[in-house]
Amino acid sequence: MASGGPEIEQLIQLLARLPGYGPRSARRAVLHLIKRKDQLMLPLSAALDRAVAAVRSCEICGNVDTISPCSICADPRRGESGILIVVEDVGDLWALERAGVGQVRYHVLGGVLSPLDGIGPDDLNLDALLSRAGDYTELVLAMNATVEGQTTAHYITDHLSGRGIKVTRLAHGVPVGGELDYLDEGTLSQALRARTEI
Amino acid sequence: MASGGPEIEQLIQLLARLPGYGPRSARRAVLHLIKRKDQLMLPLSAALDRAVAAVRSCEICGNVDTISPCSICADPRRGESGILIVVEDVGDLWALERAGVGQVRYHVLGGVLSPLDGIGPDDLNLDALLSRAGDYTELVLAMNATVEGQTTAHYITDHLSGRGIKVTRLAHGVPVGGELDYLDEGTLSQALRARTEI
Repeated sequence: MASGGPEIEQLIQLLARLPGYGPRSARRAVLHLIKRKDQLMLPLSAALDRAVAAVRSCEICGNVDTISPCSICADPRRGESGILIVVEDVGDLWALERAGVGQVRYHVLGGVLSPLDGIGPDDLNLDALLSRAGDYTELVLAMNATVEGQTTAHYITDHLSGRGIKVTRLAHGVPVGGELDYLDEGTLSQALRARTEI
Repeated sequence: MASGGPEIEQLIQLLARLPGYGPRSARRAVLHLIKRKDQLMLPLSAALDRAVAAVRSCEICGNVDTISPCSICADPRRGESGILIVVEDVGDLWALERAGVGQVRYHVLGGVLSPLDGIGPDDLNLDALLSRAGDYTELVLAMNATVEGQTTAHYITDHLSGRGIKVTRLAHGVPVGGELDYLDEGTLSQALRARTEI
C-alpha cells in the first residue's frame, strides 16, 4: 500500500489499538493529525512524551498520577473524613472524583477476584488494603455490581471482621434519569426495598 | 479535579480533539494507554515523534508521505498509464489506493471551490494541476458527488478544454452490496441510464 511511508503506517496501526478505534478510524485520525500538524499533532506528541515520563502508580493507593504518593494520598484534608473507598480500577476512582464525592481517600484493587481467569488474592492490591484499612473508620466497597465484584467485596468483609471498621457498599437503585421500563428486575426490587420517605 | 496530574489532563484534552473522540472516551483512552505503558503508550509516543519529524506534503501532487516527491510521483511505472486522478483530499487518494485502482498518478486539490465559504481557485492546488495535466492523456475527476465537487470539476474541465486531454469522471450507480430501496432517486435514475449488458 503506497499511502504514506512506514512511519505513517505504524502510527495508524498503533492508534487502531486505542479503545473505540479500528484500522479505518485510525487512518482517519492520522489524516486529521497530519492536516493539523502544528495545532494538534505536535502538541499531542509532546504531551504524550511528557505523560510517558511523568506517569506513575501511587505506592499507597494504586491511583495513577505524576507524583507518588498521589495528590489524593498526599492531601491531609482527605484523611479527616476517615472514609476509604475501595474501587476495582483507576477509571472508577476518576468517575467518583468527577461525581465530587468529597474529601475521601481511595484504594485501587487493580481488578477483582476471578477464579475462572486465575485471578486470586495475591494478584490484587489486597494486602496493602488490609494493612491500611485500620487508619480509617469506614470502608466503602465500591466494586462493580458483578458476581466477581461482589465476591471480592465478601472476601474483604471477611478479612476485616472483628477489627471494628464499619464496612459499607454503594446503594442499589434506579439511576438518576433512568426509566423503570428499561431496568432489570433485580435493581427494581432492590430500589423498592430501599425506598426512602419524601 | 484531582484525577491525575496536569500532564494527564492535557493528554486527555488533546486526545479529545481526535475524530470520534470526546472528553469521556479520551479519558478512557488515556487510562488504556497508561495501563499498557510498555506495549502501547511508549511505542505510540515514539511513532508519533517519528511521524511528526518525517511527514511532508508532496511538492508535485499534494499527497502526504515521508519523502517528497512522494513514492507515487517518484515511481516511473505510475506515469506509463497516462492517467491522472484528481481528488479533493489525501483521504480520497488513500481510499483509491486501497481499492487497488492500478498504476495511476494523483493530484490532491486540498478542497473544493466553495464561494459561500470563501474558497476560490487560488485557495486550491489548481495552478499546479493545470500545468502538469499536459503530461497525461486522461484526467479522471474523482471529486465527491456534491454541488461543490461538481462545480470544481466544471471549472477544471473549462480550463482544460482545447488542450486535447481526455477528461472523465467516476461512474454513478448502485454501490456494490447496496439495496435499491435505500438509494436516492438521482442515483437510481443515473444507474438505469448507464445500464450495461450482462
